[in-house]
Amino acid sequence: MTTRPWSIEECVTNYSGAGIKGITVWRNVLDNKNLEDVRNLLNDFNLEVVSLARGGFFPSTNPQKRSVAIDDNLLAIEQAASIGAPLIVLVCGADGGQSLEKSREQIAEGIIRILPAAQGAGVRLAIEPLHPMYAGDRSAINTICQANDMAEMINSEMVGVAVDVYHLWWDPDLKNEIHRCGKHNNLFAFHICDWNVPTTDFLNDRGLMGDGCINVPQIRSWVEESGFTGYHEVEIFSDKYWATDQKAYLERIKNAYLTKT
Amino acid sequence: MTTRPWSIEECVTNYSGAGIKGITVWRNVLDNKNLEDVRNLLNDFNLEVVSLARGGFFPSTNPQKRSVAIDDNLLAIEQAASIGAPLIVLVCGADGGQSLEKSREQIAEGIIRILPAAQGAGVRLAIEPLHPMYAGDRSAINTICQANDMAEMINSEMVGVAVDVYHLWWDPDLKNEIHRCGKHNNLFAFHICDWNVPTTDFLNDRGLMGDGCINVPQIRSWVEESGFTGYHEVEIFSDKYWATDQKAYLERIKNAYLTKT
Repeated sequence: MTTRPWSIEECVTNYSGAGIKGITVWRNVLDNKNLEDVRNLLNDFNLEVVSLARGGFFPSTNPQKRSVAIDDNLLAIEQAASIGAPLIVLVCGADGGQSLEKSREQIAEGIIRILPAAQGAGVRLAIEPLHPMYAGDRSAINTICQANDMAEMINSEMVGVAVDVYHLWWDPDLKNEIHRCGKHNNLFAFHICDWNVPTTDFLNDRGLMGDGCINVPQIRSWVEESGFTGYHEVEIFSDKYWATDQKAYLERIKNAYLTKT
Repeated sequence: MTTRPWSIEECVTNYSGAGIKGITVWRNVLDNKNLEDVRNLLNDFNLEVVSLARGGFFPSTNPQKRSVAIDDNLLAIEQAASIGAPLIVLVCGADGGQSLEKSREQIAEGIIRILPAAQGAGVRLAIEPLHPMYAGDRSAINTICQANDMAEMINSEMVGVAVDVYHLWWDPDLKNEIHRCGKHNNLFAFHICDWNVPTTDFLNDRGLMGDGCINVPQIRSWVEESGFTGYHEVEIFSDKYWATDQKAYLERIKNAYLTKT
């Protein structure tokens, strides 16, 4: 998604050419694709699939929609297994027509419902806490504390947490909660970008590391102290950067990663 | 600010005509005004001044700017006293060029610096925690817990907290922290509006109570349980509503207040 103008084929060839070793695949690029072809493409270019994005969106005031969401998450598990993704990132969802507590109950129910399929497929699930500005419609899990609580309550080695600096940087308890997450072996993914000052769009105005006000090196140090040895995934949604030449942008990302994180 | 297209004269006559008893005056409407005239106008129409908005914006990496901010807050205290406002709401500020911790230190320093003048003028100060989406540039105080911490640390009867549902509705600790705030006699102001789903602008897309997903009656009950007996202030920044007839809008606000809060 960081290089959204590119097809999966362009992502794979260009990432590989740039020396990047891993990729998270978004489901939209899988539409109308043969998943075995995608898996072979990723293998041919030695790109490790870090995760599939995204599952989730469990809550709804409408039971039928909740049922559709379960089916969609089961499909995501199949897709993940098919392309060799060991992890699905969950954007858990929220329905503004009910309380956050109710949405969180439905999130927990949803995860528990899909857990046997995830176990069967060997695909782990990462609860991604989203910034409180998404509490109305995208996620009722808005702090890493809430994600830790839920992962510990579900208490399965298949369920953990995705830490994204964009969503969590402002949290006064972030250091302790990252350490807690690691201590329970729940730190499954680490996403980086930056928070632009000012930010002008709710979705697609993320910054490249160094553009904004997030102390990425500090958060990275907490993540590493917690025993995390996985990929540092650059996840930037940016109308501004998507409008630029993506090859040059990929070089800027690499440079920012090497100097600003 | 809720009826931004109106001058202070239009606000006062229309609010009074609509049976509204109180008003928070924003400083921008005081530009080039004789403050005694404003005070007389408010008195003539029996409008109680709830507060002056806004002071704050203390933090900066530049010491000269911090000094200018102190002067501006001292001016705000004079203005508040001049128009009969017993309270100033503080949008505390943040500078993305330094850590949130550093900005919070400078906020505490700023409040402590202006406290003698506030005491001398009999004007109280309300720390308003702002939504985490404003942590980069508008406030490093992003939870009511942080506001409570700071008010209790400063420990003056002149310093308290402003609770705004827009900023705080998502917070899983909100009920306990509102009760804590009341217990320490720090609940100085209560602002209401709604969170639109989806929200499309960082500043001016607030909803009228009932438009969005905030459970205002529930938060109001926590505020009242905490002993708060002050005004329930409708504070809506909305390009959409500002573009409509403000008299009709005022009636909608009254109706929403009576039926949705």
